[in-house]
Amino acid sequence: MSAVRIGIVGGTGYTGVELLRLLVRHPHADLRAITSRKEAGMQVAEMFPSLRGHTDLRFSTPDEAPLADCDVVFFATPHGVAMNQARTLLAAGVRIIDLAADFRLRDTATFERWYGMPHACPDLLAEAVYGLPEFNRQAIRKARIVGNPGCYPTTVQIGFAPLLRTAGLVDRSHLIANCASGVSGAGRKAELGYLFAEAADNFKAYGVKGHRHGPEINQELRRIAGLSDDDAALSCLFVPHLVPMIRGMHSTLYARLTAEGQEADLQAMYASAYAGEPFVDVLPAGSAPETRSVRGANVLRLAVHKPTPDTAMILVVQDNLTKGASGQAVQNMNIMFGLPETAGLDLPALLP
Amino acid sequence: MSAVRIGIVGGTGYTGVELLRLLVRHPHADLRAITSRKEAGMQVAEMFPSLRGHTDLRFSTPDEAPLADCDVVFFATPHGVAMNQARTLLAAGVRIIDLAADFRLRDTATFERWYGMPHACPDLLAEAVYGLPEFNRQAIRKARIVGNPGCYPTTVQIGFAPLLRTAGLVDRSHLIANCASGVSGAGRKAELGYLFAEAADNFKAYGVKGHRHGPEINQELRRIAGLSDDDAALSCLFVPHLVPMIRGMHSTLYARLTAEGQEADLQAMYASAYAGEPFVDVLPAGSAPETRSVRGANVLRLAVHKPTPDTAMILVVQDNLTKGASGQAVQNMNIMFGLPETAGLDLPALLP
Amino acid sequence: MSAVRIGIVGGTGYTGVELLRLLVRHPHADLRAITSRKEAGMQVAEMFPSLRGHTDLRFSTPDEAPLADCDVVFFATPHGVAMNQARTLLAAGVRIIDLAADFRLRDTATFERWYGMPHACPDLLAEAVYGLPEFNRQAIRKARIVGNPGCYPTTVQIGFAPLLRTAGLVDRSHLIANCASGVSGAGRKAELGYLFAEAADNFKAYGVKGHRHGPEINQELRRIAGLSDDDAALSCLFVPHLVPMIRGMHSTLYARLTAEGQEADLQAMYASAYAGEPFVDVLPAGSAPETRSVRGANVLRLAVHKPTPDTAMILVVQDNLTKGASGQAVQNMNIMFGLPETAGLDLPALLP
Amino acid sequence: MSAVRIGIVGGTGYTGVELLRLLVRHPHADLRAITSRKEAGMQVAEMFPSLRGHTDLRFSTPDEAPLADCDVVFFATPHGVAMNQARTLLAAGVRIIDLAADFRLRDTATFERWYGMPHACPDLLAEAVYGLPEFNRQAIRKARIVGNPGCYPTTVQIGFAPLLRTAGLVDRSHLIANCASGVSGAGRKAELGYLFAEAADNFKAYGVKGHRHGPEINQELRRIAGLSDDDAALSCLFVPHLVPMIRGMHSTLYARLTAEGQEADLQAMYASAYAGEPFVDVLPAGSAPETRSVRGANVLRLAVHKPTPDTAMILVVQDNLTKGASGQAVQNMNIMFGLPETAGLDLPALLP
Repeated sequence: MSAVRIGIVGGTGYTGVELLRLLVRHPHADLRAITSRKEAGMQVAEMFPSLRGHTDLRFSTPDEAPLADCDVVFFATPHGVAMNQARTLLAAGVRIIDLAADFRLRDTATFERWYGMPHACPDLLAEAVYGLPEFNRQAIRKARIVGNPGCYPTTVQIGFAPLLRTAGLVDRSHLIANCASGVSGAGRKAELGYLFAEAADNFKAYGVKGHRHGPEINQELRRIAGLSDDDAALSCLFVPHLVPMIRGMHSTLYARLTAEGQEADLQAMYASAYAGEPFVDVLPAGSAPETRSVRGANVLRLAVHKPTPDTAMILVVQDNLTKGASGQAVQNMNIMFGLPETAGLDLPALLP
Repeated sequence: MSAVRIGIVGGTGYTGVELLRLLVRHPHADLRAITSRKEAGMQVAEMFPSLRGHTDLRFSTPDEAPLADCDVVFFATPHGVAMNQARTLLAAGVRIIDLAADFRLRDTATFERWYGMPHACPDLLAEAVYGLPEFNRQAIRKARIVGNPGCYPTTVQIGFAPLLRTAGLVDRSHLIANCASGVSGAGRKAELGYLFAEAADNFKAYGVKGHRHGPEINQELRRIAGLSDDDAALSCLFVPHLVPMIRGMHSTLYARLTAEGQEADLQAMYASAYAGEPFVDVLPAGSAPETRSVRGANVLRLAVHKPTPDTAMILVVQDNLTKGASGQAVQNMNIMFGLPETAGLDLPALLP
Repeated sequence: MSAVRIGIVGGTGYTGVELLRLLVRHPHADLRAITSRKEAGMQVAEMFPSLRGHTDLRFSTPDEAPLADCDVVFFATPHGVAMNQARTLLAAGVRIIDLAADFRLRDTATFERWYGMPHACPDLLAEAVYGLPEFNRQAIRKARIVGNPGCYPTTVQIGFAPLLRTAGLVDRSHLIANCASGVSGAGRKAELGYLFAEAADNFKAYGVKGHRHGPEINQELRRIAGLSDDDAALSCLFVPHLVPMIRGMHSTLYARLTAEGQEADLQAMYASAYAGEPFVDVLPAGSAPETRSVRGANVLRLAVHKPTPDTAMILVVQDNLTKGASGQAVQNMNIMFGLPETAGLDLPALLP
Repeated sequence: MSAVRIGIVGGTGYTGVELLRLLVRHPHADLRAITSRKEAGMQVAEMFPSLRGHTDLRFSTPDEAPLADCDVVFFATPHGVAMNQARTLLAAGVRIIDLAADFRLRDTATFERWYGMPHACPDLLAEAVYGLPEFNRQAIRKARIVGNPGCYPTTVQIGFAPLLRTAGLVDRSHLIANCASGVSGAGRKAELGYLFAEAADNFKAYGVKGHRHGPEINQELRRIAGLSDDDAALSCLFVPHLVPMIRGMHSTLYARLTAEGQEADLQAMYASAYAGEPFVDVLPAGSAPETRSVRGANVLRLAVHKPTPDTAMILVVQDNLTKGASGQAVQNMNIMFGLPETAGLDLPALLP
């Protein structure tokens, strides 16, 4: 296997440095360029001293970076950047993995409502593949554009999917996803609410008037359930909370079991659903997964519970920056280029 | 008003030191004795240097402490201590506020199942008053024994009550209380799971096979709803999570609204229900309360949401050691002795 | 005692909200106005929900606020604001307590070098009093302008003073102040380095090329030692570090003892030096003070050590926002207006 | 290179799980056994879910574990265990790396004074090698017993060494090591002081009456300086502090420069001293290293400062569990068995 030539657009955020952490030791990665208009010229390892000794790369401007010579370009940028550069890169034969939201929502009106901007290339949306390997592996293999899933949606989809694939097990109209994320999920941007002195020793819900991951979750759960993208027969209430930790995401999922669902062996159903998956770990019955058990690792762990006779409760953890973002992006790259899916993603979590 | 003579049994835990923090500057408190078999003789301020300059009290053994001369004795002890000393103290005319669970559950079988010990004085259970002032103020006034509520149950009851008082607003059979607590809720005991290096930068659910506060929550929600203690028509699923913060508790409560409930003005209903309450703060519509907004304060703040047409979601915060334990105990004392209910409890939260 | 009429300029930072926390329950404080150009019109308790129920005050613009009708105005502003408004307020008979650095450094050239701006009223510097009550109580009583000390300098001065007052005890030319602060010390401003995801689970030195508190420390230590402001015979190296905690400051001070100093009973010397001080707590020999023992309290605790025969090591803690800033400012106000020095400052620390 | 057969005695602590994290993906490691008397039979990955999918190993009792068939045995045990098993293992041809203190101090009296137990094999002390590769690489290569250094001593020795190797640069009689460690340094044991609710949001000095790493530091600094183990001409005061973070260690080192030392180019001296070292990173002049820049990585970063004309200040960071313990132990193993020194230790730090 020859190395994949890689470019990263927007490397100064948390998903950018996480991509770098994974790629500098990926056995088949040839990191060619990383762009930052603002930091052009600066050594990557000067901004992120954790990378000293691991790379000599410098940030370059988007214009001078040899992106067109890459096999794949990751966008670790704010929403709205990838869609404006996609056409040019595709024309040059470059494949794209966008870690932002430009290629996640299939309905442009929905995109525009939640992200506050018109979509720059609605036609490309049609061919973009939603990059959740556990459900879309075949399509990812051949995709030119992969929309890497949001962090919360990854946990909610993998958590609910086995209950939704078969109709009639749960009341699909009242799913609840009570989720919690570490603060790095907010990105590396200077905002008051994410200061240490504001976010430490504190817990709260946020996005209570609606969060962008809500429509993404519902769109994809519907697809998993075999419904159309906007079929209100399935509705999941998504409520995020902010936890004073750096990395980590925890979702507590509730579904009301039908009479048929109450008969099912949920543990066996989940074990079977994810039996071959390298990055989904179904814990033994009775477990409560901890976010630290996946810190820095590209794995999602979940536990299946039936706390009352007619309630299914799924507990899911992942590292929001790894399986929830950059690790999953590398997993997608591995699939797209025929590499072993676990290449460069074999690290155990950092515990304690 | 003459000062209330006070004894504290078991003052070396977190609810003990929190009682001390509040009582050393309470205008009507005369702190007479604090016991600790293990630390007898030691100055309280030597163990808790935060109290240096505020008290000269020393820990004494339970035997030598002048508890019988007190007007009230607080039990800040493990479960099972108060019930063994209650009879003697009552005989001496001393009133009791138990911060543990001995006098919370009215059914002794339930107590024995969840706390793993026989109840020492089932007869006294009948007269014990559940010490949630917002609902039981009159009874507390005259009580000889007050069972101070659990921390989680306080948030869940105050959060759900207005929806349950009137029948027919919500589906009472499927209430969900998704709760989260800071680590001090586990008490001041040396257990591996609560070490800094285990609990920091981490989030998880716990008690997933059932938590002692579950039966307490259901017992009291039923009473609020006008049902008998074990009427399964009302059922609340309670799921606690552990947050890497010292103090603070957050409950996200979900109830499915009936057609009638969907018509109701929930915000107005809550504002009215708690209009006169000094320690319940109904936030403006659209709010998301933060635990730090009540750090060290005896106040519970809540916000009322309707995230989907048929879902009521109540967000509740309190300091688990103050309104969730010792502050509420002092509030009960104030009521029992005819003091202003806010005496000694007028401190703003510590923010940041 | 009639109430003191109080104005606060710049109430949206951490020293501002800490002033409010202390003043809303101060028995002799009449809070008249709090300004914020940016948030004018907003309720203070909307920005700081910890104050809900404690004040109805709204932010007003500096122009419309009745500052001239106040007895005292606190400046909880960035450096450079107070010096531009001082003359007008003084003319109206208003006394000033500046929590920023405008009135701390007596040498305008030093001020200009470290704060990067010319001093607006060098003439007023002459009459301004350095507001460290433990050393300047008499002057504070009559002061029209009080320059409230920096947080680090407070710990370093109180920590070193007894060793410096008598000449010949230590090598004054090589004092070392190895200090550490919680993140709130950086203020409530949106900067990348103070994000939770940057500052949590991390420790580092900062200001290694020189920190503004260095000249302030040296100026005042020299005065305490009876030297002129720039006498290089005394030199203290000041090295600050950033700790992942919200509040709290810890200074580890080193001085090399002379032969004479080695004979001295340091513990007794410190106990005697601070015997009458309400807010300086000399711990028993052998102690190691914890920052949490002063969380939210206006007290500084210190311990005296002689780890080698010729080394004095003083360990000092305070809450950087209370004794290190706003609490000390209220202490100064109490002194200026003939109130009991401890009025409104009697709160025990919040532990845990 | 054939794989090294490895045993671990005492694998349930933090140095144990850190060894496992590194060894499960070490290209030349063949992990044969891990012992725990208490947890015998349990899957390692059940205790440490971070290792699920990385190892099927179970804890075995020390008696049944095939330690004698190993090439090397790591002791990740409390002090005093390795010295009692060393003779038997050596007799079986097994080499030993002790992560505890049994083979660090060359003077048995000193060992017995600080560790409170007689030394079980003083004769073996003579041949034991102090396992700091940067200074003892040749001896480690052939060692049968390696005493892996303490975490603090590693930073202090690497930090001070270039200043001490040449006589006459600094006043060796008054070195100061002001150090700070994350809480995992205290080990995975249930003690009150290391509870989250005790250690979070707090900072303090500890071990103020003397810490075991003091004699180790002085012994080794003397050797580096070419002095005998107890030559009082060199004396380093060591003062540790506890930081509310999980991993990470920071040392702020002070030395007074002589006239000759003031002439030296310290930056160049350090750059040259560590030019070839794979795990010592001398930062550019003016830097302040952060502990997070080495989180989970086997690298020590340092910065050299001259804050006053006659003061050298060295800032050093490492991960206390990696370069400060288990990573260094693996580095020693690599050297002992002729493997590339960086094998299995090539991971970038986890940032954020």
